[in-house]
Amino acid sequence: MESERQPAAARRAVVLLSGGMDSCVCAALACRDYAEAAFLHVDYGQRTEARERRAFEEMARHFGVRRALVLPCPGLARIGGSALTDPAIAVPEAPPAAPVAAAGEIPVTYVPFRNAHFLALAVSWAEVIGAGDIVIGAVEPDSSGYPDCRPRYYEVFNELLRVGTREPGLRVVTPLIRRSKAEIVRLGLELGAPFHLSWSCYQASERACGRCDSCRLRRRAFAEAGHPDPIPYAAG
Amino acid sequence: MESERQPAAARRAVVLLSGGMDSCVCAALACRDYAEAAFLHVDYGQRTEARERRAFEEMARHFGVRRALVLPCPGLARIGGSALTDPAIAVPEAPPAAPVAAAGEIPVTYVPFRNAHFLALAVSWAEVIGAGDIVIGAVEPDSSGYPDCRPRYYEVFNELLRVGTREPGLRVVTPLIRRSKAEIVRLGLELGAPFHLSWSCYQASERACGRCDSCRLRRRAFAEAGHPDPIPYAAG
Repeated sequence: MESERQPAAARRAVVLLSGGMDSCVCAALACRDYAEAAFLHVDYGQRTEARERRAFEEMARHFGVRRALVLPCPGLARIGGSALTDPAIAVPEAPPAAPVAAAGEIPVTYVPFRNAHFLALAVSWAEVIGAGDIVIGAVEPDSSGYPDCRPRYYEVFNELLRVGTREPGLRVVTPLIRRSKAEIVRLGLELGAPFHLSWSCYQASERACGRCDSCRLRRRAFAEAGHPDPIPYAAG
Repeated sequence: MESERQPAAARRAVVLLSGGMDSCVCAALACRDYAEAAFLHVDYGQRTEARERRAFEEMARHFGVRRALVLPCPGLARIGGSALTDPAIAVPEAPPAAPVAAAGEIPVTYVPFRNAHFLALAVSWAEVIGAGDIVIGAVEPDSSGYPDCRPRYYEVFNELLRVGTREPGLRVVTPLIRRSKAEIVRLGLELGAPFHLSWSCYQASERACGRCDSCRLRRRAFAEAGHPDPIPYAAG
């Protein structure tokens, strides 16, 4: 199958962008490698959607993409069950040095089966606009232990695409999945990724809180890469 | 894995109901077999949504279920590309005796990757309410040739559930997938399924058109089963 595919430079890709640091680097990679990168952001009623959408729109302008689409996914918030979509469940906070998640534990910021919703939207759009690849910035090491961020999940998802779509060549690619967050920062710096436009905090929209899992993973990554994080933080 | 599961009579199931004849029979099966059947309908902006929702609500009342949820999925209509969601693409019609789809051809009523959206919503809800099974009335024989109605698709989807959710016991079951439509009618009659409440037509909401693929498959099924179809049709 792979040998029959056109090179990336002749293909169109759908890039899933939350607006965070990982998708910022994916966007830079995709804009370098594909004939066209079509940007897709999903509004699933998460706490910081307005801020994430601003990051998405600023990245779309930065890269000058032809297609940038925001799709609503209101079902996830209606279902609830996660600190990211249910205001009644607090986002856990901790000092920067504390571990992000206990081994084998899935935190309350887990949104049940979330990435399947994002991928389903990306696949449906890819079928309609004739994109061959879907790029997603899932990361396994240094992550919060979400089950839908592991390489095996994407292998199986690609098998689902082979059997369940009209386009047999369609596939999901995860260029960052085995990289540490510090490696992702270094890669982004090499590519000139616009980290200053990205947003990772789970709960704040003006100055990042610095205390949620997402902020702590991000700050540690920039510190390890030896580069200042260009976004503003509330806590020192 | 299977041997460790509780019997169905002790489990909760999420049942996906479009409101058509296949999901009507699935609902009857699930209400017979599970401790609780939680009904889920997805509003994806399809042409006949108002009529389908009425069928769903009437079935929920008929079976007296405790949980009946309608979830919006507006992304599919925003993406378009199908006669069911795009008013600019006509629903194909044909006389009752004509074949439903040319061999190997996927008709314009195909909604790209649609069942993945439905299943993702069902899985997220199942994780939150603690359901172990998701029941869907996908049918391969006598179908319109949609790639996401084949047994292999559901095998792979179940592998995705094993690797990508918090609940390792969660799975999708497809009790009708290898049955002919006539067998499904006979099974529904045995179970006392409320076919008079169901709706299958792709385009009409008062009297079924009788000429779209969905009507033609349904009428043929009732004719083969030797039972009158209790819903009203516009054409003889």
